[in-house]
Parts: sequence; C-alpha cells; structure tokens
Amino acid sequence: MTDLPDVSGLTIGILGGTGDQGKGLARRFALSGLKVIIGSRAAERAQEAADELGNGVRGLDNSACATESDIVIVAVPWGGHKATLESLKAELAGKIVVDCVNPLGFDKKGAYALPVEEGSAAQQAAAILTESRVVAAFHHVSAVLLLDPAVDEIALDVLVLGEGEDREATDLVQALAERVPGFRGVYGGRLRNAHQVEALVANLISVNRRYKAHAGIRLTDI
Amino acid sequence: MTDLPDVSGLTIGILGGTGDQGKGLARRFALSGLKVIIGSRAAERAQEAADELGNGVRGLDNSACATESDIVIVAVPWGGHKATLESLKAELAGKIVVDCVNPLGFDKKGAYALPVEEGSAAQQAAAILTESRVVAAFHHVSAVLLLDPAVDEIALDVLVLGEGEDREATDLVQALAERVPGFRGVYGGRLRNAHQVEALVANLISVNRRYKAHAGIRLTDI
Repeated sequence: MTDLPDVSGLTIGILGGTGDQGKGLARRFALSGLKVIIGSRAAERAQEAADELGNGVRGLDNSACATESDIVIVAVPWGGHKATLESLKAELAGKIVVDCVNPLGFDKKGAYALPVEEGSAAQQAAAILTESRVVAAFHHVSAVLLLDPAVDEIALDVLVLGEGEDREATDLVQALAERVPGFRGVYGGRLRNAHQVEALVANLISVNRRYKAHAGIRLTDI
Repeated sequence: MTDLPDVSGLTIGILGGTGDQGKGLARRFALSGLKVIIGSRAAERAQEAADELGNGVRGLDNSACATESDIVIVAVPWGGHKATLESLKAELAGKIVVDCVNPLGFDKKGAYALPVEEGSAAQQAAAILTESRVVAAFHHVSAVLLLDPAVDEIALDVLVLGEGEDREATDLVQALAERVPGFRGVYGGRLRNAHQVEALVANLISVNRRYKAHAGIRLTDI
C-alpha cells in the first residue's frame, strides 16, 4: 500500500446528506475530527440532520454546502442525481466530487442494476461536471453500520475510482476513506469501470438477504 | 453460512480447459480428489494439458467432455463463448453449467467491460442452454495463483449466482468452490446481476497493476 495525503484540515460536504448513506458517512467523518457539512435541498432539513448528528456537523442547502466544502460527496437518490449536479455545476467547479450513487431498481426478485446512458452514475457526473475532478467511491458502505453507535469499526475496502492522470484526487479520497476505523482506501480503476462497482450493490443486497448480514468487501493479497 | 452438499463423487468437466483459468481450476479440483476432464476443440490438446496436470485428469474434445461430466465449467475465451455453447446444447442438456467467462476488452488504458447483448456471459449461456441449469461462478480466481505449485491456499470468496428457484444448483457449485483450500462459496444473487460480477475483473486488473498483486475478494460480515 502507498502513503496517502493528510486530509485532516479539509471540509467535507455531503449532498443528499439527510439520507441514510450520506448521514452515516457524515457521522463517521465528523467522529474522525473532520469538518462536515450536510447539504440538502432545504437548509432546514439539513440543519435537522446536522443537529441529530452533533460533533460539529453543520447543515446548509446543497448550493452553500458545495461552495463551502473542499471535497463534496454526492449521496443523493439516483432519481435526483442528474438534476442536482446540473444545478450545482458552478459551485462544484474545481473541486473533487465523490460520487457514491448506486443506480438500482427493485422488484419482487430483489435489486438489479439500472442501465445508465453515460455508463454509470460516476460517468454521468463527469459528463455534467466538466470543471470538477470526479471520483467514485463509498458504494459498498452499509448505512446501517455507519449509523450504529454500537459499531466502532467497519471492515471494508473502499474502492476508489478516478481518471489515471489525476492520481492526487483518488489518493485524497483514499485518505478520506481511511478516516473511518476499519476502512481501507483502495484504488479500483478508471471511471469507465465504475458501473460494475456501483451495480455490485445489487449482489451485496442478495448476500445480505441470504446470510442476514451487512456484507462489505475486502480485497485479498494487497 | 449454510450446510452444503457433498460433491466428492462428481466428475467436473472444464470446457476451454487448456487456457490458464480452466487449467488452474482443473488442477485444484483434481488435487482435491475430484475426477476432472479437460475439454478442448482438439482432443490432443486437451490430452496434452491433462498430461501436464497429472492427478488423474483426463483430456477429451469438448463434446465428449460435456457428455461425461456431471458439472461442466465454461472457461472458453469470450470470443468463442456463444459458438461453443450453441454447438454443445444437446450434450449440456440437464446438466449444471458453470459460466466463469469475463467479457473484457483491453486497450492502452487497461481492461474494460464489453457490452453483452444478453446482459452478461452467464445470461447468454442461459439463453442458449435452455435445457441446462446455468450458474455463474469463479470469475475472480487468479489463474497465476491456481497454477502456482508454491501456493497451497488461496483466500477468495467465490460468488455463485443462479436462479432463485434452483438453489440446489448454486449450493452444489458453492460446495465445488470449497474443494479449493481457502475458497469459500457464497451465494451472490440471480443471473440478472451477473454482469457486474464478470466486469469487476477489469477493476481487479487495475488493482493488480497498482499494487503488484493477485487480488481476490472476500465478503465481510458473513
């Protein structure tokens, strides 16, 4: 494994931070000592979620959240992904934007991957946010475990994908992942290979049903 | 985890068993005491590979391999996948067919997932082999490790996908996986979620390049 940069001085914004995945990440990052801002369409809802989490978490509307943060995590529902990012293109310019959205459908047979015109949620983000540095990560985190106060450590390798020419961005996000006890940030390839990482959540949902678990992933031999 | 059936009396056929992945699986299954038949288009090439492996492995042409085996693993190159299965539809009728093919392309930026009309190699197999019981598994095995005589145990969770109404088939393939020391067979969902499991090999190739490893996958919390 490689030396990763220090992210301790950065402010982390989480768009859609009132959802379980976003709130769970906000909680863990705040517990690790990072400054965290939850974003939501309505500032009041963001403030409510922030108050619930404590640990210095602030709540702002998505636009202010994007403006005031150094790294911005996109944790909005897939249905609102495109419109949210289009509306924040200016605020997100020049920033590292971390997409953790999983485009999934559900029916009586369980979860399945939805087709995405651009290939993946991350590639859709990159197509919209041409002035940002888009990274994909945090797809396989269990919101249940992130939010559980009885869970101190979560075994998970966070696959971090980005463009090969911007290693600084993926290194920073790997370092961000490692703020959570038990998480390891692992480079997982380019954005063109993001679809399968997003879609694998459908398989994890099947695993969780079969084994009554909150399954995550570890990579062996690294 | 659940109790899995006994597969010790079964004969395992491996179509495309002269390639590294097929030969590696043949080697490990034979070492575990199973009867193994390597299949190839040319019986002589299959026989050569079998002689190389020893441990009672036999080599036959693909058709005879399919006929004489209880469980048939498809390890042919993606380019020959459709034609091979179409030509063996009769021989494979009524059998468990385990697809481990990863449809990948390669360019100077590395590996990437190829689009598959049916959704995945496994779904293509199921569409062709309407009288067989198609299961997807063994995508993430490292041929290098399988073939390395210095490696006794390989840490890997083998994701096994199949149709929900045929649990017997996925249970048998999970049990087959567990013949290899270090492998654990884990149910990974339905065939409609096979694409991302196949495509994830592109990410593992990126991981291997970055970390100089032969990465596999473990699922946590199960």
